[in-house]
Amino acid sequence: MNSFGRAHFSDQLPTSLDRKNCVLIYDQILSRQHGSWIRKFPNRLAVKSGETLKDVKILPRHLTAILNLSADIPRTQLTVVAFGGGSVGDFAGFVASVLKRGVKLIHIPSTWLAAMDSAHGGKTALNVGQAKNQIGSIYFAQDTYLVKKVLLKVPRTQVQDALGEFYKMALISGGAIWKAAVNEASPDGDFLWRHLRLVIRGKMQIVKKDPFETKGIRHLLNLGHTVGHVLETELGLSHGRAVHLGTLFSLNWSCQQGFFKFMLVPALWPSQSELKRSLKAVKNPRQKLRLDKKTSDGDAIQFVFVRKPGRVFVRKMKMKDLLKEWKRQCQ
Amino acid sequence: MNSFGRAHFSDQLPTSLDRKNCVLIYDQILSRQHGSWIRKFPNRLAVKSGETLKDVKILPRHLTAILNLSADIPRTQLTVVAFGGGSVGDFAGFVASVLKRGVKLIHIPSTWLAAMDSAHGGKTALNVGQAKNQIGSIYFAQDTYLVKKVLLKVPRTQVQDALGEFYKMALISGGAIWKAAVNEASPDGDFLWRHLRLVIRGKMQIVKKDPFETKGIRHLLNLGHTVGHVLETELGLSHGRAVHLGTLFSLNWSCQQGFFKFMLVPALWPSQSELKRSLKAVKNPRQKLRLDKKTSDGDAIQFVFVRKPGRVFVRKMKMKDLLKEWKRQCQ
Repeated sequence: MNSFGRAHFSDQLPTSLDRKNCVLIYDQILSRQHGSWIRKFPNRLAVKSGETLKDVKILPRHLTAILNLSADIPRTQLTVVAFGGGSVGDFAGFVASVLKRGVKLIHIPSTWLAAMDSAHGGKTALNVGQAKNQIGSIYFAQDTYLVKKVLLKVPRTQVQDALGEFYKMALISGGAIWKAAVNEASPDGDFLWRHLRLVIRGKMQIVKKDPFETKGIRHLLNLGHTVGHVLETELGLSHGRAVHLGTLFSLNWSCQQGFFKFMLVPALWPSQSELKRSLKAVKNPRQKLRLDKKTSDGDAIQFVFVRKPGRVFVRKMKMKDLLKEWKRQCQ
Repeated sequence: MNSFGRAHFSDQLPTSLDRKNCVLIYDQILSRQHGSWIRKFPNRLAVKSGETLKDVKILPRHLTAILNLSADIPRTQLTVVAFGGGSVGDFAGFVASVLKRGVKLIHIPSTWLAAMDSAHGGKTALNVGQAKNQIGSIYFAQDTYLVKKVLLKVPRTQVQDALGEFYKMALISGGAIWKAAVNEASPDGDFLWRHLRLVIRGKMQIVKKDPFETKGIRHLLNLGHTVGHVLETELGLSHGRAVHLGTLFSLNWSCQQGFFKFMLVPALWPSQSELKRSLKAVKNPRQKLRLDKKTSDGDAIQFVFVRKPGRVFVRKMKMKDLLKEWKRQCQ
């Protein structure tokens, strides 16, 4: 196993990288705002971000390009630098994990979702046809750079999208970060930047206890994702919004199960009626839930419940009980 | 990291596997001799062995089939069983290492080369175009079954091909296995079966000291491969024969460097004149040697030399010195 790596917080993009030994894989839209930094890399590959990038069908073409770019770099020095959002990180991370049986990896996330979540914890992933994240690896970046200049240029709508994962982590971690989540009336990029270190620390505390997801601990990070993934795929919602709705579903079910009585939900959360509308819009939820590899182990579901902020837990539930609850929350 | 797994020696193919949770990936030619055992697996994929199977271009198609076969198997139970030679093992091992970020893997090698070498040590690999083994992982099978019934049915020519790796391991290990190698006048399948346990033990002793090839120890197993790979690719020799010639090259160079004075070479080794002819037949060896990822780190070559049976070592050499030696051995 490679080690967990380090997170670096800085105002500017890093200038100390050994660029001649790097292959930079970057989201092509970043060349507008960060072109001069990008062009300093002699070996670079522009990619179009999104789910298509993660389709295993285009992997062979990209691998050929990457092998050409890296032909003169000694294997032990070769470093893949991923500069982009979640799809770029998932793709480039996978490439780094299998290229010559594994080379060094550096993440520079360019979206809030990647900066808060996907760039940490080592998960890489590709899609096989419509089936998302069916192949991948757990492969940790040696360095992850969180760059204020990059993240504060992200459009406001992306900040909104990212709040779902932020609130999810706040609920899992509890303490100071949950307090900040509840009290902030208009969370913006500056707000996320101020709390980024805490969010990452919260995630990595869990990842370090269960790096390869073999002990069930890491599954806690899937809070809101069981229902969230279905809403994301079926209704075309953003990942963040879908997880946000999924987290609300989980809170409701936790309450119905009697795990907690009352919780101060931040004012900015999606409303119960939005959740109800979304759940109703999904046709045949049983079939959709079964497709989720995180969820289904035959007819058993590892569902993440909430007792209070800072105390979430996994309980094995039956598919039919989840469907009954889905129906209840539709009413 | 997954653990090193266990090697099982048996007369018959294993009957105790939890077949409903397995996806069997097998060389289609094996259905002739082992069809009744194969057909007991409800989820199975016949593949055509050889380098084409390892082409990353056909990975997407095979992954789609494998995902369909495994759709109803819980991820934690899912086991890929590889039944075939080196290419089938390399391919199926890679699939197991990335499918749902890693599932269980069982190897049942059906060739002597796979049984002695590639099924052990966790290396998986795919090709990118003409560039061999450019992507892969180090992923250990939980169980490897060495089955007498399967291996003793292997055609006699394959036994010949396998001798290259056998002698290589004998030279690395020294002791009883080298003694057996020197004294056997007509090595056949029974001979290889009798010494299989020792060969595997010798390899795994090295692998366990350096599982991820980060300490330079594992590189000892590449004895004979620097020159061997070039002969294999350029002249179309079998892997075993090419490694055999490469090992002889290495012995000659070790002698020329004064690392040892005299060694009893088994009577069945390829002759010096065969080696000379082969080396001469390669056009532009510098270019071909540089393509080998195991060898080249810019212009430095990690070359495996021999001091005596049981004592091999790696020395960093210059490309120009290897070429000078190549030329010398051509004369």
